[in-house]
Amino acid sequence: MNIELYTPDYFMREALKEARIALDAGEVPVGAVVVAGNKIIAKAHNQTEMLTDATAHAEMLAITSAANYLGSKYLNECTLYVTLEPCVMCAGALHWTQLQKLVFGAEDKQRGYSLLEKNILHPKTEVVRNVQATASKELIDDFFRRLRGR
Amino acid sequence: MNIELYTPDYFMREALKEARIALDAGEVPVGAVVVAGNKIIAKAHNQTEMLTDATAHAEMLAITSAANYLGSKYLNECTLYVTLEPCVMCAGALHWTQLQKLVFGAEDKQRGYSLLEKNILHPKTEVVRNVQATASKELIDDFFRRLRGR
Repeated sequence: MNIELYTPDYFMREALKEARIALDAGEVPVGAVVVAGNKIIAKAHNQTEMLTDATAHAEMLAITSAANYLGSKYLNECTLYVTLEPCVMCAGALHWTQLQKLVFGAEDKQRGYSLLEKNILHPKTEVVRNVQATASKELIDDFFRRLRGR
Repeated sequence: MNIELYTPDYFMREALKEARIALDAGEVPVGAVVVAGNKIIAKAHNQTEMLTDATAHAEMLAITSAANYLGSKYLNECTLYVTLEPCVMCAGALHWTQLQKLVFGAEDKQRGYSLLEKNILHPKTEVVRNVQATASKELIDDFFRRLRGR
């Protein structure tokens, strides 16, 4: 039996765990992990409410944490897994990191970077979408259902 | 004699002081201040090298600092003065803050957000460009001249 441990689904499930931490804290539930050589070097979830900071998206916190771990501004040998398609801010940040690979869960039809005509990621960044998309979207939907119920 | 103290030029000169701090530290010289009701509530300069963090642009640090000061994610009664046209990341961040007004110095023909067809700032954000543009650009040119001279 060949068990593949380090699949995209595996890492996205780790990002989903982060998203659930955000949900439980009353934040928009988005989680991210940064992986280098099959090792998770950073984990983060959206903390815009807790930090009272519109820039504290999961991706931004994960980028800063990964760069700190590596001692490098560049994540050109890293994959970032994030449960929701990055917004323009986060995609712009990923550009500066020269990220090797971006894997995201659900598409964001309102705020996703790919709504722009131009590709704002780094031209070398490979993109994989729709990994664990249903689970990712269910979390977001759950959050907004709770919000409306308040 | 009518002396207008709190002109755009005044605040941009304060942002230029921040840019010069960056220059002296070997950073790309960009500085920013956030103003609310004629009061500077945040100052920052680019620290990507010092913090080893590609997201540590002057605007990002100024946004976080201003939000911290106000205890609010929203800067919808603030003006951000920045010596160089914001990049896509920073403009995307400014969108989330619902910034009232953006004033910038030199245009960035390589990385400026306004190179995109779509306006990625918040639709309510007023924009003024080319305030102290020559001084802002001279700092950037000075930096890259020094870099090439190394």
